[in-house]
Amino acid sequence: MTADSDQTRARPRRTIISVDAMGGDLGPATVVAGISRSAKKNDEIGFILHGQKAVLEPLVAKRKNLEGRCEIRDAPDVVSMEEKPSQVIRHGKATSMWSALESVRNGEATVCVSCGNTGALMLMSVVRLRKLPSIYRPAIAVLWPSRNPQGFNIMLDGGADIRADAKDLMQYALMGTSYARNGFNLQRPRVGLLNVGTEEHKGRAELKEAHDLIAANARTADFEFVGFVEGRDLPGTICDVIVTDGFTGNVALKTGEGVAKLVSDLLKDAFRYTPLSRIASVLAYTSLQRLKKRIDPRRANGGVFLGLSGTVVKSHGAADAMGVSSAVKLAFQLAQTGFTEKLAARVASASLLDQDDATEDSKASGDTA
Amino acid sequence: MTADSDQTRARPRRTIISVDAMGGDLGPATVVAGISRSAKKNDEIGFILHGQKAVLEPLVAKRKNLEGRCEIRDAPDVVSMEEKPSQVIRHGKATSMWSALESVRNGEATVCVSCGNTGALMLMSVVRLRKLPSIYRPAIAVLWPSRNPQGFNIMLDGGADIRADAKDLMQYALMGTSYARNGFNLQRPRVGLLNVGTEEHKGRAELKEAHDLIAANARTADFEFVGFVEGRDLPGTICDVIVTDGFTGNVALKTGEGVAKLVSDLLKDAFRYTPLSRIASVLAYTSLQRLKKRIDPRRANGGVFLGLSGTVVKSHGAADAMGVSSAVKLAFQLAQTGFTEKLAARVASASLLDQDDATEDSKASGDTA
Repeated sequence: MTADSDQTRARPRRTIISVDAMGGDLGPATVVAGISRSAKKNDEIGFILHGQKAVLEPLVAKRKNLEGRCEIRDAPDVVSMEEKPSQVIRHGKATSMWSALESVRNGEATVCVSCGNTGALMLMSVVRLRKLPSIYRPAIAVLWPSRNPQGFNIMLDGGADIRADAKDLMQYALMGTSYARNGFNLQRPRVGLLNVGTEEHKGRAELKEAHDLIAANARTADFEFVGFVEGRDLPGTICDVIVTDGFTGNVALKTGEGVAKLVSDLLKDAFRYTPLSRIASVLAYTSLQRLKKRIDPRRANGGVFLGLSGTVVKSHGAADAMGVSSAVKLAFQLAQTGFTEKLAARVASASLLDQDDATEDSKASGDTA
Repeated sequence: MTADSDQTRARPRRTIISVDAMGGDLGPATVVAGISRSAKKNDEIGFILHGQKAVLEPLVAKRKNLEGRCEIRDAPDVVSMEEKPSQVIRHGKATSMWSALESVRNGEATVCVSCGNTGALMLMSVVRLRKLPSIYRPAIAVLWPSRNPQGFNIMLDGGADIRADAKDLMQYALMGTSYARNGFNLQRPRVGLLNVGTEEHKGRAELKEAHDLIAANARTADFEFVGFVEGRDLPGTICDVIVTDGFTGNVALKTGEGVAKLVSDLLKDAFRYTPLSRIASVLAYTSLQRLKKRIDPRRANGGVFLGLSGTVVKSHGAADAMGVSSAVKLAFQLAQTGFTEKLAARVASASLLDQDDATEDSKASGDTA
């Protein structure tokens, strides 16, 4: 990956984001509208856009602010949402997703953004960008709205792998810390390990082991370990980063979406109930819009793939232009801070610690590293 | 347990609920206020109240509507929220919790209600009431507000055991069905199995096995199996009963609480934002109260322990009088329908099916049973 840093130095002013224009539920026009929105707001971003050239060229031509800032790479095929990741890998060389990752792989772009099939994107990222040395399971870091000052909490794994052992969870803590620092400017993030209770005797055996491993790395990696946390802390204020396996994380994430939707539906019902409540709803409109904006999933759009030699931001499949723009903004922020390199360094320093060896000694070595 | 049915027959008009008056966060006065509320609404309930007689007597005396309907049983000790279940079992014979379960064990009461330590109550229930034949893991069934006609969905296990294998999950489906039928009058409940995706190839191996086992029992047990469901379906409308292990269930439950609290806090923030929004909030008051009532956790209060020779309703530790009254109402409803016996029969019929044998054959035997 030396080509990467050479090219980075040679590049002029703009930070280049590689964008997969196809595969999202709303099609390439939405993606182009999204990157145009980002281009308008931020003069330092440039794009390499991957997809069917014949489709993309007229879409890009319509957006004056993309002129000279958006190179199009032709890729005839599209990964659909229904395809199995293993099939995509075998026949996917001509897809926009493959092409988008290629630009990160060869150093033309710093971060890749895609709205496509999550499983396929993760598997393709692992195959093309490779995992960082010592990382066994990459993870997807997702955002929860919270009342913490940064407005969001980071949870990982959001669903890259349904399993995670103690060492994986410890690496998630390190990667989540690095993300919180580079993505949200938190110097010493507070990390919690998701469990069914905060008492140390509760939960699965691998969680107790993970608890000790994470505690042993807290000082070296400069995060505060708050210990076990519960589901209610995901959108809470007692920590900034929550670590869990991808099965539990994915269920929690979708549960959160479901509850937010239920409350919003019931709120609408409540205001529709009587003529008077309908009048109240008109007066309450701006307040309700303020709430809606605050918990708008588009604002927290972008699952970040961590543990790879390259950064990939997975936008929600149903993201509209604003959602795509949020994902691009996140990608830019991570590119700016040199996140990929910092994360790699952080994981490498912990794996040194890990070689010293194992759970028993890690407390001591953590103190002296 | 023949004494049980003899005594049931001998009992006059009232359905007797055994209530642990101690151990809740708000103390015995709240519990007495709660049962008094229930007594006012429903003339068919009688109580046996367990706890420190000297404390309870004056509390009960103050409530005229409890006169002649509430017997007090002295129990000097209280199980605290912090105690480990294993310790409680060794030294807990003089506690109000033990005494409350004893009334169900000896057939004086049909259902037991307690606001105390969940882990201790579950372990004590297993030890004193015993598991049903063929049940390896009892479960806690909890309620989610939903827009289904019955207003709630049932999820189990909510946290009795952090593990569950395929057979346990199948039994949870049967027990949840029985609860939905007797607690909510749903004749043919729709059952879903919680997973990270609805596609059959996703998720853990034991979930695929459970999927087939549950499908094989759907016809005999007269429920509709909707297959894999996701976190967003817990408060959704595509099924009435959701089956999962106690770790995932507990995380989801607490995540739901956390998200509901965040939305409610942000709603308050939104209405406090400007003087105009404060005026709007006054006009929107009744609508907001309507919403609050709809998602009020007190209305869905009561985790039901399933898989035991006796029914136990666990009220939230922080339940107020209204919460206690909801739990009593649920206990009464279950007692009325003969839930304990029906559930035992349902599980027994499935275990016959299970003896015919195993996963491979169960589809065929399910069709002919």
